[in-house]
Amino acid sequence: MAKEKKLVEAITSMEEDFAQWYTDVVKKAELIDYSSVRGCMILRPNGYAIWENIQKELDRRFKETGVENVYMPMFIPESLLQKEKDHVEGFAPEVAWVTHGGLEPLQERLCVRPTSETLFCDFYSNIVQSYRDLPKLYNQWCSVVRWEKTTRPFLRSVEFLWQEGHTIHATAEEAEERTILMLNVYADFCEQILAIPMVKGKKTDKEKFAGAKATYTIEALMHDGKALQSGTSHNFGDGFAHAFDIQYTDKDNKLQYAHQTSWGMTTRLIGAIIMVHGDDSGLVLPPRIAPTQVMIIPIAQHKEGVLEKAAELKEKLGGFRVKVDDSDKSPGWKFSEQEMRGIPIRIEIGPKDIEANQAVIVRRDTREKMVASLDDLDKTVGEVLETMQIEMLERARKHRDSHTTSASDFEDFKDAIANKPGFVKAMWCGDRACEDTIKEQTGATSRCMPFEQEHIADTCVCCGKKAKSMVYWGKAY
Amino acid sequence: MAKEKKLVEAITSMEEDFAQWYTDVVKKAELIDYSSVRGCMILRPNGYAIWENIQKELDRRFKETGVENVYMPMFIPESLLQKEKDHVEGFAPEVAWVTHGGLEPLQERLCVRPTSETLFCDFYSNIVQSYRDLPKLYNQWCSVVRWEKTTRPFLRSVEFLWQEGHTIHATAEEAEERTILMLNVYADFCEQILAIPMVKGKKTDKEKFAGAKATYTIEALMHDGKALQSGTSHNFGDGFAHAFDIQYTDKDNKLQYAHQTSWGMTTRLIGAIIMVHGDDSGLVLPPRIAPTQVMIIPIAQHKEGVLEKAAELKEKLGGFRVKVDDSDKSPGWKFSEQEMRGIPIRIEIGPKDIEANQAVIVRRDTREKMVASLDDLDKTVGEVLETMQIEMLERARKHRDSHTTSASDFEDFKDAIANKPGFVKAMWCGDRACEDTIKEQTGATSRCMPFEQEHIADTCVCCGKKAKSMVYWGKAY
Repeated sequence: MAKEKKLVEAITSMEEDFAQWYTDVVKKAELIDYSSVRGCMILRPNGYAIWENIQKELDRRFKETGVENVYMPMFIPESLLQKEKDHVEGFAPEVAWVTHGGLEPLQERLCVRPTSETLFCDFYSNIVQSYRDLPKLYNQWCSVVRWEKTTRPFLRSVEFLWQEGHTIHATAEEAEERTILMLNVYADFCEQILAIPMVKGKKTDKEKFAGAKATYTIEALMHDGKALQSGTSHNFGDGFAHAFDIQYTDKDNKLQYAHQTSWGMTTRLIGAIIMVHGDDSGLVLPPRIAPTQVMIIPIAQHKEGVLEKAAELKEKLGGFRVKVDDSDKSPGWKFSEQEMRGIPIRIEIGPKDIEANQAVIVRRDTREKMVASLDDLDKTVGEVLETMQIEMLERARKHRDSHTTSASDFEDFKDAIANKPGFVKAMWCGDRACEDTIKEQTGATSRCMPFEQEHIADTCVCCGKKAKSMVYWGKAY
Repeated sequence: MAKEKKLVEAITSMEEDFAQWYTDVVKKAELIDYSSVRGCMILRPNGYAIWENIQKELDRRFKETGVENVYMPMFIPESLLQKEKDHVEGFAPEVAWVTHGGLEPLQERLCVRPTSETLFCDFYSNIVQSYRDLPKLYNQWCSVVRWEKTTRPFLRSVEFLWQEGHTIHATAEEAEERTILMLNVYADFCEQILAIPMVKGKKTDKEKFAGAKATYTIEALMHDGKALQSGTSHNFGDGFAHAFDIQYTDKDNKLQYAHQTSWGMTTRLIGAIIMVHGDDSGLVLPPRIAPTQVMIIPIAQHKEGVLEKAAELKEKLGGFRVKVDDSDKSPGWKFSEQEMRGIPIRIEIGPKDIEANQAVIVRRDTREKMVASLDDLDKTVGEVLETMQIEMLERARKHRDSHTTSASDFEDFKDAIANKPGFVKAMWCGDRACEDTIKEQTGATSRCMPFEQEHIADTCVCCGKKAKSMVYWGKAY
């Protein structure tokens, strides 16, 4: 048994040290490895396969709304980055600069894209002439680079994978509509596929994207009570169009500035999955995103007929993503590995089971064991996966709701942030000064002004002046 | 009619100026646009959609052979790039260097990956300890950068998209087997999906990959008689393993160096599709790779029932990738656009057709028109697409074969290269000096030593010494 325990023992428990638990899971589930490049991660097959499923699901949803994929250069000339004032101020301090090509210095240095608004704008200024050319609904899947000082797997790294959607429209209304549409696509995807409930809302001016008129966000709550910004959708108005001179001729033959949006999601979502659903045995993957949904583990596999039956069951479960672990490790070790990797269902099948025409099904999240007949195993597996998906979302929602408090004065607020990990709902006057004070005194930031507003009090939780809106506050990753 | 002709008139004819024709097609079919970054291209939706289909097909084939996807950092520290002597000599002159991160100079400069052997080796040296850890069969989809001086859309650019497979094995035999296996996957894919026949063979030492023990290649012939290297598969032996100290403990508990391969295909394949199948009306896409396989063009679409019928047909053809062009352009203009974009089948449907329960089907490659009953339109479309796919491959094969000559002495050889665009088969002694002479005097390079050897003569076409193998020679992109 000593050997079997090793894998689990290697993990710190969540309650003891959540940050260490997270790092342990990331490493032991073989999602990521550190590279020789500071702050850059290697996505190993187990990690990348989750990203591939995220891509598949999101890409399909994007295309259903008319979005087309493109690919832009990874380099941005310095002069191009500088065209929009707020944008360059936000990003210039954290970009990587290419100064030499081959053996020669470049005439103008190039930054490795931290995001591609400027490239898309430059492109639009070439291809958008008439109202007939609008809208353009583009997206690209790529990696971007931000020279972060402190990094954490999936959550913050120098290079990360993401998608960035960039659209351009004739009118302000259309741009706003698209901004909200994509936020909803994100939130639905997170709830339906990742089993993570989201708070949808608008960022304050302090927290919005560099160059945006408005930034909308979806915010999730992690197991430790910290918030994670999980996706953002920006409305640029016609600010970039002015900076890049993107004008089109409207139906009345008048020149008009176009309106733009951008929206992005990243591999950080994998961090969210880990921190919302994981437990002390490792990762727990929602069935709809799990690269492997069912691991069949033969018991006493050297005995006649066991491996054959395992292969037969795999065949029978062809509608799901199924693997058989027929390696020469012990069953106990295989159980640990399957749990560590978060595979939703384990099927144990041994000589006695075969004799009784049954198998043991174990759910990863609840550890619930059930004996199932082999005759309708596919039906049972389908039902268990479906139940698990729904219950994981419900559990995450309950956790979030039980870790969300309201505060109507600053004392309550400080107490909540200090002693009740989670979201705090509180009123805000709309002044940046109060956000700064709150950050300084509690470490919490405004996560968003939710679309679903509530009336907690009449006055700002910080300054006591008349409140303008209810805000979700919290410590965040 | 003036307006309708514009799109076609904008294209130079192939016979007049092939290079200009190519550039015209790339631009007018909206596959690519130039960016503000020298040598970097923008893949527009029409171009990127072809790449997505290439990815889907290749990725599935890779995975069927056990390959898993990963993602490595885009940066390589200079010291890591320098570990393998031949490799760094081959690539250092053409990489882009990052020297600053944020506002500070880096302690060690980083190159943007031109290829990722060194990163994979570094990773393997951490995760490969025992024979149980082998093989690892990894692949990644990403972009790479090579600081090329002269660039051409798809064929040669500073940044391009590709996949790079990297595998590591216990034995030399396994590595060689994998190298050939992937070359065959490439060749089959090109023939079956892109309708491009390939010559499979081995590169001479002069032409092999920097750091490889052996490079295998697939070579295609373009319409103008120039060759295009379309995919390569390298066997590294244990050279990189020595440079990076990648050793594993074998079953007898002895330390052994591992054996490696890598293999890659790029967006250059899109250039091959254009130059093998295109014509003076634009792109011609093989049905299996075409993002849109059928364009339905309504005739007199303002008349009652026409647009409805077009939509109904689209529904009926749900098993194919179908679009309806219901824009307010004239049918003639729409025909030109569909032809320029290379969409395999056009279906014309107007009031008279509807009355007769029929539609006109036009094949893009042969321009063949046929009248088809609406009752079994899906069957007809399926058959036409299938026939077109097969005939496009046959036509490309005939073109290649009729543009392949043999030469047994140097006069014949020079005449063939100068006057008969295409491959020239000729014997070679194995000496680099003869390759250099041939290049110097004719501009042709050795494309490969084909697996299917023929006996053209006893002696080297250049020096007259005893021949070692038959080589395909040609001018190449």
